Amino acid sequence: MALSIRNQLPGTVVSVTPGAVMATVKVRLDGGQELTAAVTREAVDDLGIADGSAVRALVKSTEVSLATGSSVAGLSIRNQLPGTVTGVVMGGAMAGVKVAVAGGTVTAAITKEAVAELGLAEGTAVVALIKSTEVALEKG
Amino acid sequence: MALSIRNQLPGTVVSVTPGAVMATVKVRLDGGQELTAAVTREAVDDLGIADGSAVRALVKSTEVSLATGSSVAGLSIRNQLPGTVTGVVMGGAMAGVKVAVAGGTVTAAITKEAVAELGLAEGTAVVALIKSTEVALEKG
Amino acid sequence: MALSIRNQLPGTVVSVTPGAVMATVKVRLDGGQELTAAVTREAVDDLGIADGSAVRALVKSTEVSLATGSSVAGLSIRNQLPGTVTGVVMGGAMAGVKVAVAGGTVTAAITKEAVAELGLAEGTAVVALIKSTEVALEKG
Repeated sequence: MALSIRNQLPGTVVSVTPGAVMATVKVRLDGGQELTAAVTREAVDDLGIADGSAVRALVKSTEVSLATGSSVAGLSIRNQLPGTVTGVVMGGAMAGVKVAVAGGTVTAAITKEAVAELGLAEGTAVVALIKSTEVALEKG
Repeated sequence: MALSIRNQLPGTVVSVTPGAVMATVKVRLDGGQELTAAVTREAVDDLGIADGSAVRALVKSTEVSLATGSSVAGLSIRNQLPGTVTGVVMGGAMAGVKVAVAGGTVTAAITKEAVAELGLAEGTAVVALIKSTEVALEKG
Repeated sequence: MALSIRNQLPGTVVSVTPGAVMATVKVRLDGGQELTAAVTREAVDDLGIADGSAVRALVKSTEVSLATGSSVAGLSIRNQLPGTVTGVVMGGAMAGVKVAVAGGTVTAAITKEAVAELGLAEGTAVVALIKSTEVALEKG
């Protein structure tokens, strides 16, 4: 099985907070960062996701935003992975940006306008931002 | 392997339109509907997605919106699956809504406020709306 | 810090509805519209988001859909900002559409097919549609 989802970050579940409909799952990535996923409570129950579960955090490229600099304050966006741009591909409307982060590479599909405005190029220090609701989980 | 992604709709690729960065992939679902996925060009190349490929369209519940009635016009949202509500679970902020569509069931996580305002209940006719950028593909 | 997120709409929090895991936050935009954000409960607590908080609503371009006309009924999508198209950039698979709304500009990344089908061009009256789960918040 192969997924179109470009970002597949392996890690281990460190906590699960269940609500009636949704649940937040915290994952310690193999790269050392902590990631929060907001998934349905049903998915947590069906997959038996619990503390210690080995998972992959899955994030579609179109769900990854970028901030320049090394840290970001005051954002509701839970997942912030610092890294360095390693490549930019410009299209007619969109751009694909590769970012090396601890433990792997993240791909972001953002507008080409954003690339120009932020001056993103190989070597730019960025933080990859991923809203918790955009993170899915795969259990091995 | 198990995915937290609730919506996994099997189908067959009927066309691929590649751009420089993104590509749109049209899938004929086993239920008969046509679905469009906007994924990275890289994913299409890596997975060898082409006309005739057997795939599963994957959509996170938080990415599914609902409209009451049986059809919606004038929307940029490409994917519109008509169906009937089969269950609603209310949480503190969010609600989970199950919708029977041709060929399967779709789960939507929407605000509980939307459920109240639209009067969603078992039996309500709805259209599940899914933006193309929110559809990932799994190749078997 | 500069963000790739194209849509940054300033406003003031008017209510917070906390669930166990998620929370919905209503924001009165400076342009006068009301916006709902569904974010994690944890983010609300960490950032101290409460009635009266000055925030920016952040929405990635890929999360904005468009409907032609001036209003849309029967939709679970909470956020509907009426406006007028001011520009369209076509790519190979995707298109970027700029929409002037009260208080600012919204950028939508939608399929080029949707642009063609809806006949979007400078001057077209549209409603920008944004699912609550796609809205992040930045606290000043």
